[in-house]
Amino acid sequence: MRCIAIAAVTIDGKIALDSGHFSDWTSPEDKDFLHEMLDKSDVVVVGNNTYKTAIEPLSKRNCIVFTSSVAELERKSDKLLFANPATVDVKTLLKEYKTVAILGGMKTYTYFLQHDLLDELYLTIEPVIFGRGLNLFETAENVNARFKLESTKELNKNGTLLLHYIK
Amino acid sequence: MRCIAIAAVTIDGKIALDSGHFSDWTSPEDKDFLHEMLDKSDVVVVGNNTYKTAIEPLSKRNCIVFTSSVAELERKSDKLLFANPATVDVKTLLKEYKTVAILGGMKTYTYFLQHDLLDELYLTIEPVIFGRGLNLFETAENVNARFKLESTKELNKNGTLLLHYIK
Repeated sequence: MRCIAIAAVTIDGKIALDSGHFSDWTSPEDKDFLHEMLDKSDVVVVGNNTYKTAIEPLSKRNCIVFTSSVAELERKSDKLLFANPATVDVKTLLKEYKTVAILGGMKTYTYFLQHDLLDELYLTIEPVIFGRGLNLFETAENVNARFKLESTKELNKNGTLLLHYIK
Repeated sequence: MRCIAIAAVTIDGKIALDSGHFSDWTSPEDKDFLHEMLDKSDVVVVGNNTYKTAIEPLSKRNCIVFTSSVAELERKSDKLLFANPATVDVKTLLKEYKTVAILGGMKTYTYFLQHDLLDELYLTIEPVIFGRGLNLFETAENVNARFKLESTKELNKNGTLLLHYIK
């Protein structure tokens, strides 16, 4: 099992302005990359807010939604499972998958970071500064996790940059 | 006059854990780059907290310290000027310099961003995640400032990455 976070951020490290703000500000090239990555993944994990902003595009994917709205697990359809990470053993739940794509938002990225389940990170940096907004992670204590930069790639002429980090 | 922000951030966009935490976590290669940039600059602008964490290395530089501890301007020595950005016309103050290096912290970077005085940004991304800490900027409203990616450079084998953005 490899857990791979995929995130687009601004130059100042923001994933969105607020929790209802999905990826309308990212480049077409980043969206293409995201779709390629999802095609290669066995399951997608998203938080409930992120899920709500992308129900339709996620409907064709095998999808686990992290939410406190269910006690433990609740299967919604053959492709859709709701899971409460506070009561479910996430590591066991994900064990059957080879490639797990983590799509955020902040709380979901942070869950994987804090539980030492983050194996890789694909970070697209769009050449824009928001000045404020949601961070990629928000832990209570500092984690100081070191990664290796595996590759860098310019996705377009505007300077959208894709970085690949491995734990 | 060109105002150039120089900052080191974590993968998750943090410049420090807190306001007393200077650059002990950055790579030697980033420090070399910083010194090169400062040698090429006519004046360095820093906030008072950042200044206090680096009084000795900054003592040989022509330096303006942003602080609310002075009413307007107060010359401390031939190389050191304290300025209150709330009462002083910063643009006029900096007009005599060709190259202005902005070293942070967060409030000082934010001042230049919010007053549309940020011409360039050198961003060093160290391959570490803090999970929490101080952001590069913290504006009250979102600014949505677009930049161009001028260049990227790997500074060492650990994957420290230097990005150069121009407004």
